[in-house]
Amino acid sequence: MAGNTFGTLFSVNTFGESHGPALGVTIDGLPAGIKFDLDFIQSEMNRRRPGANSLGTTRNEGDEIEVISGVFEGYSTGCPITMIIKNTSQKSQDYSAIKDVFRPGHADYTYTEKFGIRDYRGGGRSSGRETSMRVAAGAVAKLLLKEIGINIKAGTIQIGDVKAKKLDFDHTFNNELSCPDEEAAILMRDKIKDAKDNLDSIGGIIECHVSGMLPGLGDPCFDKLDALLAHAILSIGACKGFEIGSGFESAKLYGSQNNDKMHVKDGKVTFDTNNAGGILGGISNGNNIIFRAAFKPTPSIYKEQETINKSLENVKIQIKGRHDPCIVPRAVVVVEAMTAIVLADRYLVWRAYESR
Amino acid sequence: MAGNTFGTLFSVNTFGESHGPALGVTIDGLPAGIKFDLDFIQSEMNRRRPGANSLGTTRNEGDEIEVISGVFEGYSTGCPITMIIKNTSQKSQDYSAIKDVFRPGHADYTYTEKFGIRDYRGGGRSSGRETSMRVAAGAVAKLLLKEIGINIKAGTIQIGDVKAKKLDFDHTFNNELSCPDEEAAILMRDKIKDAKDNLDSIGGIIECHVSGMLPGLGDPCFDKLDALLAHAILSIGACKGFEIGSGFESAKLYGSQNNDKMHVKDGKVTFDTNNAGGILGGISNGNNIIFRAAFKPTPSIYKEQETINKSLENVKIQIKGRHDPCIVPRAVVVVEAMTAIVLADRYLVWRAYESR
Amino acid sequence: MAGNTFGTLFSVNTFGESHGPALGVTIDGLPAGIKFDLDFIQSEMNRRRPGANSLGTTRNEGDEIEVISGVFEGYSTGCPITMIIKNTSQKSQDYSAIKDVFRPGHADYTYTEKFGIRDYRGGGRSSGRETSMRVAAGAVAKLLLKEIGINIKAGTIQIGDVKAKKLDFDHTFNNELSCPDEEAAILMRDKIKDAKDNLDSIGGIIECHVSGMLPGLGDPCFDKLDALLAHAILSIGACKGFEIGSGFESAKLYGSQNNDKMHVKDGKVTFDTNNAGGILGGISNGNNIIFRAAFKPTPSIYKEQETINKSLENVKIQIKGRHDPCIVPRAVVVVEAMTAIVLADRYLVWRAYESR
Amino acid sequence: MAGNTFGTLFSVNTFGESHGPALGVTIDGLPAGIKFDLDFIQSEMNRRRPGANSLGTTRNEGDEIEVISGVFEGYSTGCPITMIIKNTSQKSQDYSAIKDVFRPGHADYTYTEKFGIRDYRGGGRSSGRETSMRVAAGAVAKLLLKEIGINIKAGTIQIGDVKAKKLDFDHTFNNELSCPDEEAAILMRDKIKDAKDNLDSIGGIIECHVSGMLPGLGDPCFDKLDALLAHAILSIGACKGFEIGSGFESAKLYGSQNNDKMHVKDGKVTFDTNNAGGILGGISNGNNIIFRAAFKPTPSIYKEQETINKSLENVKIQIKGRHDPCIVPRAVVVVEAMTAIVLADRYLVWRAYESR
Repeated sequence: MAGNTFGTLFSVNTFGESHGPALGVTIDGLPAGIKFDLDFIQSEMNRRRPGANSLGTTRNEGDEIEVISGVFEGYSTGCPITMIIKNTSQKSQDYSAIKDVFRPGHADYTYTEKFGIRDYRGGGRSSGRETSMRVAAGAVAKLLLKEIGINIKAGTIQIGDVKAKKLDFDHTFNNELSCPDEEAAILMRDKIKDAKDNLDSIGGIIECHVSGMLPGLGDPCFDKLDALLAHAILSIGACKGFEIGSGFESAKLYGSQNNDKMHVKDGKVTFDTNNAGGILGGISNGNNIIFRAAFKPTPSIYKEQETINKSLENVKIQIKGRHDPCIVPRAVVVVEAMTAIVLADRYLVWRAYESR
Repeated sequence: MAGNTFGTLFSVNTFGESHGPALGVTIDGLPAGIKFDLDFIQSEMNRRRPGANSLGTTRNEGDEIEVISGVFEGYSTGCPITMIIKNTSQKSQDYSAIKDVFRPGHADYTYTEKFGIRDYRGGGRSSGRETSMRVAAGAVAKLLLKEIGINIKAGTIQIGDVKAKKLDFDHTFNNELSCPDEEAAILMRDKIKDAKDNLDSIGGIIECHVSGMLPGLGDPCFDKLDALLAHAILSIGACKGFEIGSGFESAKLYGSQNNDKMHVKDGKVTFDTNNAGGILGGISNGNNIIFRAAFKPTPSIYKEQETINKSLENVKIQIKGRHDPCIVPRAVVVVEAMTAIVLADRYLVWRAYESR
Repeated sequence: MAGNTFGTLFSVNTFGESHGPALGVTIDGLPAGIKFDLDFIQSEMNRRRPGANSLGTTRNEGDEIEVISGVFEGYSTGCPITMIIKNTSQKSQDYSAIKDVFRPGHADYTYTEKFGIRDYRGGGRSSGRETSMRVAAGAVAKLLLKEIGINIKAGTIQIGDVKAKKLDFDHTFNNELSCPDEEAAILMRDKIKDAKDNLDSIGGIIECHVSGMLPGLGDPCFDKLDALLAHAILSIGACKGFEIGSGFESAKLYGSQNNDKMHVKDGKVTFDTNNAGGILGGISNGNNIIFRAAFKPTPSIYKEQETINKSLENVKIQIKGRHDPCIVPRAVVVVEAMTAIVLADRYLVWRAYESR
Repeated sequence: MAGNTFGTLFSVNTFGESHGPALGVTIDGLPAGIKFDLDFIQSEMNRRRPGANSLGTTRNEGDEIEVISGVFEGYSTGCPITMIIKNTSQKSQDYSAIKDVFRPGHADYTYTEKFGIRDYRGGGRSSGRETSMRVAAGAVAKLLLKEIGINIKAGTIQIGDVKAKKLDFDHTFNNELSCPDEEAAILMRDKIKDAKDNLDSIGGIIECHVSGMLPGLGDPCFDKLDALLAHAILSIGACKGFEIGSGFESAKLYGSQNNDKMHVKDGKVTFDTNNAGGILGGISNGNNIIFRAAFKPTPSIYKEQETINKSLENVKIQIKGRHDPCIVPRAVVVVEAMTAIVLADRYLVWRAYESR
C-alpha cells in the first residue's frame, strides 16, 4: 500500500490535494447503526479550519463536509463512509514563483526525488490541508468512542520556551490555543505574534489526555497501543517527537520512581502515579492515556532563505502567500483525531478477540 | 491481525514465549538470491544476548539460531525464512511466587485484563526475550540494506542524568554500552552499578544514525518514514519516547533556526544542518537519519514494592530472579534491528513504485 | 478491513450506493508519471453503462467520470487517485414497494441480518452499479499494464444453453455481447430476448484471455495468481464459478493429457497446449492466461415470486423497475477490470522483489 | 506481502520446504481461552498424511505436530501459535536427476523465472507437503468454529468420469476417498488404480458442505464470503476451478429456476432450494454453504514426457520417486482446512462489527 490508509478494522483513507478540486476521506469499518452526527463532525472541522484562530493564516475556507456514501436515514450503514470538502479558496498564482525551487524544511525536494513529479501549487498531498480529512474521520471515530465513554482532549502546553504550568485537562480551555493554563496562554500568544512580526515561525508541544479508557486495548508485540499512537501522531506533518507518560524524562529515573504503584481502593484498581501514561506492555491499563507531541516551527517563513532549485543551482527564496506562524493551535484537533482513529480501530479489534 | 507481524513487503512475524520450547521469527519478503550470512546474524544475536555485557543479567542463553526454511545452498530462495532459538536456561521456579501478583510497571495486569490467561513464567510474549527474534530479523534486513550501501549504527547517549557529549558515530564504540563518548561511558557504567547496588534500576536514551541513505524512501501520508520508525521503536518494550532530528527541542526553535538550508556543492545536494533528521514530509532526503529513543528503567527491581494480586488484594512484592538493572545497553541492537526492518520494507516498496 | 478494498500495492477502494449522491473509487498505488488517459477510462465506463446494449435496462446514466485527486498536468502523481460518478437517474420511488420485502436471490435478507439496516432503494452497495467504479479502476490498471504490453480481452461464450464454438479472441467482437462467435451471438441474443419476453432472466459464461504476459507474476502459496483472480472475479455480484485453463474438465483428464508439454522453438519457451491457463504453481508462465466465469441469471425478474418480509411473513412479490434480463454482456468489461487490477497489483509486487 | 499469509483476524502463515528441516505454521489471532485439543489436530494431520490411504504415495511421514508457542496449560493464550512438523523421510537423492529439468505441469519453470533459484529437491514451497500446515491451522480454526456450532465436511464426488450419485453429506464416509456414495467409491478406486497401472494420474472433484452457519458472515464488496472461499481453495496447488451453489450450471438457468424461494416455517427462515450455496450478495444466509473444487491430475507421472531444461534444450524426462496417482483423496481435508480458516477469520470480523 502506498500509505494513504491507516487502521485495520476502522480504516481511514484520505485523498486529495490542497489545490485540486476537493479533499476527501473514506472510512471503511464504522459499524452499522451509529447515529451520524454531522453537526458534531462539522464543529470539529471548524476547530481546524484556517481562520479558526486570530493567530494563523487568513486563508478562509468553508471546509464544509459533504457526505457521499455510507449514511442512510441518519445512521451509518456499515458500508464505506466517504466525505469530501471542496477547495474553494485556491490562489494558485501565489505558488508559481516557487514552482522550481525547493523550499527549505518542506517536502518539495523529497517529493521530486520520489515521484519525479510534484504539484507545486501548495504542497499537494504534503499540505497541512490534508489533515482536514483526518479531522473528519477522527470526528466519526469519536462518535463510536462516545458510545463506550471514551473521551479525548488535547491542548497546547508549550510554545517556544513558554510552558504551561497548570496541566488540568478537566476544565474548558477558554483560549485560542486550547492551552490548559490561561496565564501561559497569554504569553504563548505573544510568542507567536513576535515570531510573526519577525517574519519567522515558532514550534510547540501538544499534550493529549484520554479518559474513560477500557483496559485491554492494544496488542503485546508490534501493535502496542503506544506504538500505534506514535505512528499516528508522527504521521502528522511537522511532528518531530512523541512521548508517552514519563517519556524522555523516564531516562533519568530509577525503577522505584518510575513504576506506578497499584492499589485496590473500594474494589477498584488504581495507580498512585501515571508514569506509564495509561499503557503497560502495549495494552491500556484503564488509567488515562497521556502523551505529548513536539511540533517544529512552520517551515514557510517570510524571511529570505538560501536554498536550491530543480536545476541544482544555489538560489534565494522569499516565500509569499498565507502561512501560520505557528501550526500548534490548529494541530490540537488533528492530534485528537488521530488518537480517536487509533482507539476506534483497537476497540473494534478488541471486540473481535475478547472472550468475556 | 493480532499485531505480531510488522512490515508490508519485508514482513516480520515473531512468535514464542520466554519460557516455552522456543522463540522464532518468520520473514516473508526477502528477495531471492541474497547471500545468507549466518555468522553475521549470530553475531548480532550475541550483541543482545544476556551476559553480553558485565552490567546485566547473568542468565546465560546460547541464543543459537536454527534456520528452518527459506535458505537453499547459502542463498535466500524468496520463500519465508523462519529462524528459531531454543529456550535452554529456563528457571520456571523463579517465577512461581509471582504467579498471582501483578508486578508494578509490567504487563501482568494488562495481559490478564486482555486475555484472561497469562503465562506467568517470565512475561511470556511481553518478555524482553521476544526482542531476540527482532534482532535476527533485523540482521537479515541488514543483509539486504548492505547491498545498497545503507548502514545503521545506534549507541547509548544517556543513562540516568549522565549524557554523552561526543556524538561522533563514525568511530568504533569500545565499551559495553555502545556509547560514542568513552569518558561518559565510564560514568554511565557507574550509574548502572549504583542502581544495581541499591536494588534498583535506571533508564536511558539511545541515538541511532543511518548513513548511505537513498532519497525517496517513505510515503507522504500515514506511512511517513519517521512515523513508521516511531511505530517500530515504540513497539520495543520499555521504550517511552521517540524523536527525530531536532525532536522535542524543535518546539523551542524559530523556523529560521530549524529549517535546514540546502546548497549544491560539487554538483551534490547538501544540507547545512540536519534538524530534519534526514526526513522531509515523511520521505528520506538522502541525509543521515538521526533519531533518539527513551527507555524507562527496568520495572523488575529487587526493592520491595506495593501492588495488588489477582484476587484484588493489596500486597507487597519482592521480585527475585535475574534482571538487568538497565535495559539500554542490550536494547541498542534491538533499535538497530527495528530500524533495519523498516528501511528494508520501505526499500522494497520504493522498488515497486519508482519509475526511473 | 470491511472488505471494500482490493489489492496490496495497486489498492482499489470503492464507495457509494446506487441511490446516494455519487459512487467513487480511490486507487492508492499507481506509480507517478503514468499518462492519465481520461478518454480511455470514459470509454471503458461506456462499455458497462446501462443502455450500452439494446438487451438491457433502459436506465440511462451518464456515468461521467470526475477526477478528484492524484492527477496533475495530465500525469499521475503517485498520490491517491479518486474518481466519482454522480447518480443522476435515481428513481427511488420504484423501490418503495420492496422496502420491507426480501427479494429472492438478492442480498436483501443477508444485509438485514448483517447490518440491521439496509438502503432499500436499489441494493445500496450490493447494486450492480457498484461495479462501475471497478471498471474505472480497471481502466487505470490497464494504462499501467499497457506500458509493459499486457492486454486483456473478455467475451461472452455462453448464454443459457447456447455456446460459442469459435473461441478466437484475436479479432474484434462486432456484437453487443462481445461474443467471439458471431453466429452464436445471434442465438444468444434471441435467448436473452426470450427470457425477457417471459418476464424472466438468463445466466451465462464469460471467458477472459490475457496476452503479452510476463512470466513470474503471482506467489507460490496463498497468493497464487489464479487464487487472486478467483477472489477478484467471484467478488463480482452474480458470479457463481471460476475455472482456469482446463478447469472442471481437468477432473476427467489423465496427467499425460493435462500436462502441457514444453518445447524450445527458435530459442523461445513454448507450451504445446494451455491446460494450465498460463499459470503453474500460482505463477504466470508467460503463456496467455485463460479463465472462465459463470454468472447466474439476474435475480430481479418480473414474474411473481414467493418470499418473506421483515416481519417474517410469507408474501408474494412482483418486482418492478428496470432490470437487465441478462447481466453477462455488461459484466464482460467488469471481468476485464478485475483482471487488470489483479495483474497491476502483482506486477508492482513483482517489481519489488525481482532481482534481475 | 509475499503471499505466505492468509486471513485478516485469524491469520495463517505457513513456512518450510518439503526437504528442509521442518515445515511450520503460525496462527496469529486465535482468541485466548480456547481449549487446545492437540489430539484432534493430530487426527486431522493423519487424514492428509502420505500413506493415509492405500491409493497414494508410500512416502511415510509421521507428520507429528510440535507446538512451539501460544498454548499454556492446555489453552490458547491469545498469542501466536506456531506448530511444526519435522521432515524425517527425505530422500533428496530421488530428485537429483531432475535438478536442471523443468517437469511438465509443475512449478519448476515458473519458480526459476520468478526467483532465479529453486530448491529442486521436491518442489520446495510448491510441494503438496506445504498443505500439511494448512491442515494444522485448519484444525485450530475448527476448534474455534466448534464453539459456535459450525461444522465442515468435504468429500470426493468425482474421479475422472466417475461421479457420485448420492450426495448425502450427513452420514459417515466409510471409504478411503471420503466419497458420500459408497458404490461410486469402488469405481473411483478402480479408476485411480487404472491410472497408476498406466504410469499415469487422474483428476477429480471435491464437494464441501458447511452446516450450522451463522447468517451475516462475509462482506458486501471485494471480500464476499464466496470470493474469499474461492481465493482459499484455488490457493491449493492443483486446484483448477471453484463453483458455489448452482455454479457453472447456473449459466444455463432462468432466474425463476435459480432464485431460491424463501419461506417462514415455524418462525424460522427457510430456503426451498440452495442454488445460492448458502451465500447471497457475499454474505452467508444461514443455509448450508455448498461448493465444489476441481483438481487436475497429479503432474508427476511415470510415463516419459517431453520438456525442456535450464539450458533451454528440448529433453525427455522420466519422473521417479513416490507420487500420488490422484491427489483428490488427500486434498479433502485440505479443502476443509482452508474453508475453516476463511470462516474462522470472517467469524472474528463479524464479532468486531456486529452490533446486536
